[in-house]
Amino acid sequence: MASSILTSSKISPFPPPSFLKSSLFLPSTSLHFPSSNPHITFPPFPSKSLAKYLLISSSLNPHPSSSHRRPPYIPNHIPDPNYVRIFDTTLRDGEQSPGATMTSKEKLDVARQLAKLGVDIIEAGFPAASKDDFEAVKTIAKEVGNAVDENGYVPVICGLSRCNEKDIKSAWEAVKYAKRPRIHTFIATSGIHLEYKLKKTKEEVLDIARNMVRFARSLGCNDVEFSPEDAGRSDREFLYEILGEVIKAGATTLNIPDTVGINMPGEFGQLIADIKANTPGVENVIISTHCQNDLGLSTANTIAGACAGARQVEVTINGIGERAGNASLEEVVMALKCRGEHVLGGLYTGINTRHIVMASKMVEEYTGLHVQPHKAIVGANAFAHESGIHQDGMLKHKGTYEIISPEDIGLERSNEAGIVLGKLSGRHALRDRLKELGYELDDEKLGNIFWCFKAVAEQKKRVTDADLIALVSDEVFQPEAVWKLHDLQVTCGTLGLSTATVKLIGADGREHVACSVGTGPVDSAYKAIDLIIKEPVTLLEYSMNAVTEGIDAIATTRVLIRAETSHISTHALTGEEIHRTFSGTGAAMDIVVSSVKAYIGALNKMLGFKEQYPTKDSIKRAPVSA
Amino acid sequence: MASSILTSSKISPFPPPSFLKSSLFLPSTSLHFPSSNPHITFPPFPSKSLAKYLLISSSLNPHPSSSHRRPPYIPNHIPDPNYVRIFDTTLRDGEQSPGATMTSKEKLDVARQLAKLGVDIIEAGFPAASKDDFEAVKTIAKEVGNAVDENGYVPVICGLSRCNEKDIKSAWEAVKYAKRPRIHTFIATSGIHLEYKLKKTKEEVLDIARNMVRFARSLGCNDVEFSPEDAGRSDREFLYEILGEVIKAGATTLNIPDTVGINMPGEFGQLIADIKANTPGVENVIISTHCQNDLGLSTANTIAGACAGARQVEVTINGIGERAGNASLEEVVMALKCRGEHVLGGLYTGINTRHIVMASKMVEEYTGLHVQPHKAIVGANAFAHESGIHQDGMLKHKGTYEIISPEDIGLERSNEAGIVLGKLSGRHALRDRLKELGYELDDEKLGNIFWCFKAVAEQKKRVTDADLIALVSDEVFQPEAVWKLHDLQVTCGTLGLSTATVKLIGADGREHVACSVGTGPVDSAYKAIDLIIKEPVTLLEYSMNAVTEGIDAIATTRVLIRAETSHISTHALTGEEIHRTFSGTGAAMDIVVSSVKAYIGALNKMLGFKEQYPTKDSIKRAPVSA
Repeated sequence: MASSILTSSKISPFPPPSFLKSSLFLPSTSLHFPSSNPHITFPPFPSKSLAKYLLISSSLNPHPSSSHRRPPYIPNHIPDPNYVRIFDTTLRDGEQSPGATMTSKEKLDVARQLAKLGVDIIEAGFPAASKDDFEAVKTIAKEVGNAVDENGYVPVICGLSRCNEKDIKSAWEAVKYAKRPRIHTFIATSGIHLEYKLKKTKEEVLDIARNMVRFARSLGCNDVEFSPEDAGRSDREFLYEILGEVIKAGATTLNIPDTVGINMPGEFGQLIADIKANTPGVENVIISTHCQNDLGLSTANTIAGACAGARQVEVTINGIGERAGNASLEEVVMALKCRGEHVLGGLYTGINTRHIVMASKMVEEYTGLHVQPHKAIVGANAFAHESGIHQDGMLKHKGTYEIISPEDIGLERSNEAGIVLGKLSGRHALRDRLKELGYELDDEKLGNIFWCFKAVAEQKKRVTDADLIALVSDEVFQPEAVWKLHDLQVTCGTLGLSTATVKLIGADGREHVACSVGTGPVDSAYKAIDLIIKEPVTLLEYSMNAVTEGIDAIATTRVLIRAETSHISTHALTGEEIHRTFSGTGAAMDIVVSSVKAYIGALNKMLGFKEQYPTKDSIKRAPVSA
Repeated sequence: MASSILTSSKISPFPPPSFLKSSLFLPSTSLHFPSSNPHITFPPFPSKSLAKYLLISSSLNPHPSSSHRRPPYIPNHIPDPNYVRIFDTTLRDGEQSPGATMTSKEKLDVARQLAKLGVDIIEAGFPAASKDDFEAVKTIAKEVGNAVDENGYVPVICGLSRCNEKDIKSAWEAVKYAKRPRIHTFIATSGIHLEYKLKKTKEEVLDIARNMVRFARSLGCNDVEFSPEDAGRSDREFLYEILGEVIKAGATTLNIPDTVGINMPGEFGQLIADIKANTPGVENVIISTHCQNDLGLSTANTIAGACAGARQVEVTINGIGERAGNASLEEVVMALKCRGEHVLGGLYTGINTRHIVMASKMVEEYTGLHVQPHKAIVGANAFAHESGIHQDGMLKHKGTYEIISPEDIGLERSNEAGIVLGKLSGRHALRDRLKELGYELDDEKLGNIFWCFKAVAEQKKRVTDADLIALVSDEVFQPEAVWKLHDLQVTCGTLGLSTATVKLIGADGREHVACSVGTGPVDSAYKAIDLIIKEPVTLLEYSMNAVTEGIDAIATTRVLIRAETSHISTHALTGEEIHRTFSGTGAAMDIVVSSVKAYIGALNKMLGFKEQYPTKDSIKRAPVSA
């Protein structure tokens, strides 16, 4: 503790000893536990080197992955032992969370964005759920699954299936068009799930798993992933046995889910380490993690799994998913980017992080699941400080409170962004600004937005970034129109008797007019729309945001509706039939107009969603094994 | 791997060996790292016992803490080595996040709720920031800091101060009225902060820290917490030295912040273990954690710190705080409640978790920082599944997908809740339902809400839980009125020329009427209000929710405004002057009416906020040391 040690930071840097590399995430020293000996001694810690090294690692290399090339794809082997595959399940696990239904077109957009990010595997859906799910996976397999880039990268397209022949066939029929198709099949292995959900013995489950992996391989699929559901609570010896058997049957990736999010990070890391140590044949497959977030530990558990030898991590954009969601792609990827090289033994991913913001916004728009302002990496406040901090230049070195640069994830600094466009701004300025905000649009979409932009700029002196984002949401993230709003007129106030008149144009080009009274302006307008469209739906959620300075900003409304008599889908984990829900967004400077546009958008999305299961011609039914 | 092992779950349960207790969070086995020997052997794992034990721990004891009594409070010592103190900094770190400003009255409400939760220490604010901050801390110290319950529990009231005499005196003047006052002082210790923020040498910082802790003790405060800011990136030897010196000077708690949220859990656990192993005199103080969430790892880091010997954890309700926020109280507490006994060596807290939902909602309302639907523990979806799952009774055992029971955190099951009240429901039914929703209200507040409820029930057949919550927000979580809305009349639509007329009543009881046109109904109404109130503000955010089924639900609007010419405060970490921002909420069945109520609420909050620093009489200035 002598003060002479204070000069240690002047020692020239040297690489951290291997002890540090292998132990910093999960220290090998015995730590002080209440139940253990309080007089325990600690081994000497190499403090000088650590101190320097922490300072080194905190000054981030803006392109830490640039020195790495993505290793070639082999289903059951990764040539570089430090490479961690990113398996995105936004379109499957994320999409089955309450209210997050996406149409096929939206799923295709998300899949394209995931390919831009460079995710290794896209779990595109659960093809057996419904016809629309099947078609969405098939379309993604055909389009995104064949778009090989100049470096030879193309994402694996994966379809989920329960452990039965019908599901597996359906998954294969959907993904087989991809250059790199994968079938992901699962069955629960924990005592509680065997007893209460499956009502099967361990031997029965073992048989099913073995036979179904073999069946998947027999279809011609050489990339088969198997998940023992609720692995975090499963009997260890049974886990090793079932995993060993599916490896023999041809599985190439073994995914270990903490299905209920109950594991502590060290515990989950230990589970992965144990599986790697005790499963026969494990050296021939990739181990994967799938961590739910019920206790807020999914990111930590995922990283602990990678440190313990997992080389695939299953994540979702914004961490969406059922209940508290999954490990979020952006948190796991940025943690590996910031600390992988120095603290996590050299682990790295192939993700181009500059597409994170666009992916995050797109998934927010399509699913209606908004992230909280303090969401790590992508929340509105993640890079914001209480106003005043940046302005007076007190923080001369941004690293004092910032470990990630906003530009790294494709975000402009808000204090540099501000208000840039006005009524005299041209198409070129608009395109540049949208690009800075993370939106790269084709000419047609840009053209549509440009005319909206001009209309707003006529009414508003200053068109802000948030206005532009709202316009993009309104124009780009919209389902195909069946009904269009032509005119709206409303009166309301504290006196009651709100009255709305709407004029809609149908797919046939005909005008329809209706009026209604209601408890408020939106209620009366929606009732008038219902009089025209006549679809029985329930409004589940309604929300609105206008996030620029000044109420003359554009308001974005989001609604979530549920079809009452149709649009049934099958839930992957429980096998139950569920009613689909549909979200819609609308943007306008008048909040009643934006509310009406959102409702019509949700109705259009519902009307455009295919209901029926694929016909018997496209999938031949087989005896169901489970 | 023999199938005979499949019978292991029939073995009668026995306690897990101590090896498991001390190593499951941070395993002592060397795990597979890419940089380490791939042929490393793993010690045999006691799988049979673990499997059984994981199943045991997953079936939660609904009152796991009931067997524990909270140990008596001694500043630098906890009689029970397994007890972890909860230090809530919602009112300080949380409140200084963008837009989260609370008035003194709101802070007092939150402090009372924190006392109901049973938090050990309430960091009530940063008294040197502004007069209102000072008064809020003083009021909380006087009221909440003296409300000793039947078990002798009363929260410690803590005030933050930078390392200078003026701040420390201000903190002491505010907290000294509490039965258990604490001063928390901090100074940065990392190389990057010393160089770019403080511009001081290590020796200078060491002197300041020692002298200021001694100064705090000299005022008569026997409970002094010291934080080395940015400890996660600080030179280890310097940390041990400065911590050893402040212990000698009289510090009783040493708080170790990962200020920029850069640490991995094992790394942070190692930091705590190292500090416990290498700091002279550390056996006489409590070690604390303070983990920011920039990489989504704050909860894991906090638990890793506790496992490594920290016995105070600094957290906030909903995890709010600057940038990506702090470790959230509910995640840390529920993780310890679910896994503390079996996996985390017996760690436990004194929190009554049934008050979590009310605390979460109150903080959401007061700060305007809403949690995302998939927020762990308190998000809207945390206990929801896609519709259909619970209904058909397929999941006979709720433990299959649920590790926490909603009742444990004070939440009714949504499928049991539903629609319960109508126009014939009485005051008693309303009180019961509100209590089930987590709101325990006094007679006066209940009376106000009852009349609003009757008004809504006249217009709406079924008054839902969300309607009730909106009414509570509108009536209970409101600042004192300066201006009140009397009447509003609006016309709007796609034709433009939105026009609004408002009639407000001022504090003097006089009526004021104004009208204005605008780009939409809200813009025109706000402009009309501005014509009456004449306070220069900027509208920063505007959002609205109506979360019940049907658009005839009550809409809740939230706005955030910034005073342009006044309401300056000092930021604790940077010392900069910042403009305060104020949130307001309003609820009504007409969205334009709710928008207007929210705006008036925010203006009232701003007008009721005291601006000036305490007068020179109340705090005598002393030479500033730093």
